[in-house]
Amino acid sequence: MADSLCKSVTDLMESYKTVTFEGEFKLKSGNSLPRITLAYETYGTLNEDGSNVIFIFHALTGDSHVASHGELDSEGWWESAVGPGKAYDTNKYFVICSNVLGGCRGSSGPMFINPATNKPYGLSFPVVTIEDMVHAQALLLDYLKIDTVLLVTGGSMGGMQALQWAVSYPERVKNVQILASTGKVSPQTIALNEVARQAIYADPNWNHGDYYGENQVRPDKGLAVARMLGHITYLCEESMQRKFGRDLQKRTSVGYDFEVDFSVESYLRYRGENFTHRFDANSLLYVSKAIDYFDISDGYASMDEALGRIQARVLIASYSSDWLFPPEQSAKLARTMLRNGVDATYVEIDSDYGHDAFLLELDKLSKLTRDFLEPSSVGEMEEPLCTSRLCQEKRQDHELILQIIPSKSRVLDLGCGTGELIERLSREKAAETRGVDLREENVRACISKGLSVRQGNIEDGLKDYPDEEFDYVILSQTIGYLDNPKAVVEEMLRVGRRAIISFENGGWWHERFRAMQGNGMGPTLTSGEPRCRIITLDQFESLALQSGAVIERTEFLLNGKHLPNLSQVKQMLEEKLGNQEQAAALLADTAMYVLCRK
Amino acid sequence: MADSLCKSVTDLMESYKTVTFEGEFKLKSGNSLPRITLAYETYGTLNEDGSNVIFIFHALTGDSHVASHGELDSEGWWESAVGPGKAYDTNKYFVICSNVLGGCRGSSGPMFINPATNKPYGLSFPVVTIEDMVHAQALLLDYLKIDTVLLVTGGSMGGMQALQWAVSYPERVKNVQILASTGKVSPQTIALNEVARQAIYADPNWNHGDYYGENQVRPDKGLAVARMLGHITYLCEESMQRKFGRDLQKRTSVGYDFEVDFSVESYLRYRGENFTHRFDANSLLYVSKAIDYFDISDGYASMDEALGRIQARVLIASYSSDWLFPPEQSAKLARTMLRNGVDATYVEIDSDYGHDAFLLELDKLSKLTRDFLEPSSVGEMEEPLCTSRLCQEKRQDHELILQIIPSKSRVLDLGCGTGELIERLSREKAAETRGVDLREENVRACISKGLSVRQGNIEDGLKDYPDEEFDYVILSQTIGYLDNPKAVVEEMLRVGRRAIISFENGGWWHERFRAMQGNGMGPTLTSGEPRCRIITLDQFESLALQSGAVIERTEFLLNGKHLPNLSQVKQMLEEKLGNQEQAAALLADTAMYVLCRK
Repeated sequence: MADSLCKSVTDLMESYKTVTFEGEFKLKSGNSLPRITLAYETYGTLNEDGSNVIFIFHALTGDSHVASHGELDSEGWWESAVGPGKAYDTNKYFVICSNVLGGCRGSSGPMFINPATNKPYGLSFPVVTIEDMVHAQALLLDYLKIDTVLLVTGGSMGGMQALQWAVSYPERVKNVQILASTGKVSPQTIALNEVARQAIYADPNWNHGDYYGENQVRPDKGLAVARMLGHITYLCEESMQRKFGRDLQKRTSVGYDFEVDFSVESYLRYRGENFTHRFDANSLLYVSKAIDYFDISDGYASMDEALGRIQARVLIASYSSDWLFPPEQSAKLARTMLRNGVDATYVEIDSDYGHDAFLLELDKLSKLTRDFLEPSSVGEMEEPLCTSRLCQEKRQDHELILQIIPSKSRVLDLGCGTGELIERLSREKAAETRGVDLREENVRACISKGLSVRQGNIEDGLKDYPDEEFDYVILSQTIGYLDNPKAVVEEMLRVGRRAIISFENGGWWHERFRAMQGNGMGPTLTSGEPRCRIITLDQFESLALQSGAVIERTEFLLNGKHLPNLSQVKQMLEEKLGNQEQAAALLADTAMYVLCRK
Repeated sequence: MADSLCKSVTDLMESYKTVTFEGEFKLKSGNSLPRITLAYETYGTLNEDGSNVIFIFHALTGDSHVASHGELDSEGWWESAVGPGKAYDTNKYFVICSNVLGGCRGSSGPMFINPATNKPYGLSFPVVTIEDMVHAQALLLDYLKIDTVLLVTGGSMGGMQALQWAVSYPERVKNVQILASTGKVSPQTIALNEVARQAIYADPNWNHGDYYGENQVRPDKGLAVARMLGHITYLCEESMQRKFGRDLQKRTSVGYDFEVDFSVESYLRYRGENFTHRFDANSLLYVSKAIDYFDISDGYASMDEALGRIQARVLIASYSSDWLFPPEQSAKLARTMLRNGVDATYVEIDSDYGHDAFLLELDKLSKLTRDFLEPSSVGEMEEPLCTSRLCQEKRQDHELILQIIPSKSRVLDLGCGTGELIERLSREKAAETRGVDLREENVRACISKGLSVRQGNIEDGLKDYPDEEFDYVILSQTIGYLDNPKAVVEEMLRVGRRAIISFENGGWWHERFRAMQGNGMGPTLTSGEPRCRIITLDQFESLALQSGAVIERTEFLLNGKHLPNLSQVKQMLEEKLGNQEQAAALLADTAMYVLCRK
């Protein structure tokens, strides 16, 4: 490394070790490096069978110093997430973090000496990719004599590395966390990176990357501008309003000049200037370029083929106010994994910290990580006993559904709530289950049970699945809340071979009686319950017919209990009421239909 | 103006005229200019009574050349909006556009010669504000012998000037359009502007603003970076995906170098470089600073006091994908105007062009402008005759409401649809009306009738109004679609002295009969109609009671017609059914309640 220059950028960090791998290191570009050095740090103790390894990857400007190594050490970039008892608990796990290839904090990058010239590489350092970074990390694992990793994790560019690990080394990774990231970098992100690079190019001190000489001045001004832009993208409208508003900085009124007026300007100037003390401008060029190039499907026939390689369990988390890597990019990545058979879970964490949320929302991350790595084992989890009619019906529904669904079926549960049904299906029927639910807290509850659940809207999430992906698709006590029930039923019958749909019978004699008395149907106006359609058996059967479905089986419940002698009751009433269906329509308070295609 | 320098930036535009106002021009900062020059262009012909003037204001980097003056002339920055038969129709209107104070396209700015030194001002030019720009424009109007302006309009910074006109010169402005703008610039926008300025400061050729000399090089690199950043903020995630995706620029695969890989990079580089030929770096500093300083409440005791000064009719339009000036900022501006008695209309135009939409979505703007300036006069507008039961009920509701509401009342209609009722209330009862509706197309229809309507959600829009702002608040045939009807009724009774609420009677004998037959209530599952609560008179009266309301009056309708002999019918049935209410609950298919507070 160019010593004279590196002094200033490394004086904060002395805790990393380095390892140099001699011999040609081939890069994706076709170029190669004669050798590579990686800086890395470890925390905690590797257990005997090497099964407790967590590999953490840093984002654009991070380094191997993810956390301090004790009270006297300087804080790391994820100090609150890594340590004893924290999200990545160093009492339990052996945590590794290394500086990326192309970086400037101890790993090979443009500041290193080019052995061919004995001068710092500068722009003669070859362009690297996320895949190259990951291959270098694999060498580090080999060196540490670690075969498989319990968890790879990271946010932003760190999430890209985690994803690349799962695809490039499927057999070496058991669990993957991808936070505030994407499977394919968007043109907006490329554009922002390009402007940051242009700010560096525009600085004459940059000198085409050649500024490492003794008496040369570094392109700090350009680098500071690049960093200021970065900071805007890590925040969001809401967090900026909260953090700064239009507050003035050490002024009682605006100055009508070009000095700092507003606090937000002061913050940016400070952050920009500060950054130049710890980062190398050329490294920012290399690492930002690696981000731009990131498209996980690159080198494969399709995104499906790339993601289909994944064997690990995957947890994808996005943050609601992140506009740099918006939630929809994560949701899309999750949907594409799911349709390729990956055990993927997706949750959108509500936050108004913008992209920075992955560094800040650590209570949620901590619980999420613990739940993901160590889901409560069967039996430990006891659902609080809910005595409301709806809960009782749900439970009764579940009993019936467990009877209907054969062992080892593939099942999708729409509106799966806290996962009670799919947990039982997995446990009692060895079913391969997937769930969808709209609410973050429900998805988080499912994660705590080790279930594979995607946060999203029932009404637009099914389109990504191929035909007949599932044996059964379930819609339990949810159809009344849908805006377009017919479209959902049709999609259920496309992606599943059978659909199971249950709902409160709007034609139950008690409901009819209430209606006749003038008491209306459904919840009262002031109960705070959401609008729900009142559905009768006739209405549902008409919908099924119009959706091209065949009603394969019907079950009716009363008062939360399956009616075991229904056929007898029916027969009895049939004589009076003319036919079986009419009897059911009167007697049952809940109906369940199993549909299949014509 | 510094001639040697201005040559290159003015060679594209020779069509402007200039006027110089001698004598001290005082600025908001307390500084002043010894004289000011404005460059301006006009289109069309001023009519005899001077009543056809449209004053258009440009955004950050615009100029007076809003459109060409003929086929041989160069295109203007709003070419598709200004001209014969266009949105701002120069066959009808006399259109004026001037370059802002602080600009670099003919108006006084940092490129001008400082008479005190006989050298270009550079940074010795005083910092100007949007208010200063507007005061300068007022001098121009005086010079053109124009007293009042039919319409002031502009997008982005142009919208700020339009708003400032309405507040600073309330008596000189009849109509105001504020497009893709805000009443108070957010910290995010200040941050983006500050980074753009820092990119210029970082360029050594900027030389603290002193670069106008014969042999000096201009800070083009810094200016280009600033402009690239600007272009990112004018687009949005969706428009970038559509426009560029990850397409490569003249390459079949990425180059693993720092040349242009992606189309989006090429676009930015081109736009940045191109901009330096037509714009002055110092001007960008001054104009962006004026934007940062913009807070329309500045100089007044409060935002309410500032906006309360407005006498003009106001149309505020935002664009759904604009993240530089997000819709919520416009919506908030509109709500604040409305609660201060301003005749304001707000519409959010659905677009995926980002901030640029105000320059691109011209079909919508054209219709909106025509409708706003020349609403169809009474009688011309004939609603298509709708024969559905809901339409008939709406009509019958309207008749009844027209009977109930006294002349000259202040009325708010929640869920006003296309404005049929408030249009009749305005016309037949000289009522002062306001409407709220969620749908863009409904709001646009209201604008075409000259009504004051705000696009937004009924359920969270009322909080901005003070107590008792209205005599009547109406909720016609809408309560069944609300998520929280009780909260809305309570808010109606707070902001209005009386609430009028009508809905389909869920306890009508026909509904009861359908329910009894097992046919359920409300629309069928496959009709595509949204989820709607079924509400009976009992349910509603219980809600009214819980909301602390007094039922002052009830009206019942059957088959779309008011029951004029209801009392007789009631009396007749009363004998059989025990009481009046029970009779109504059976007989009426629609109910209307007038509520007031206890």
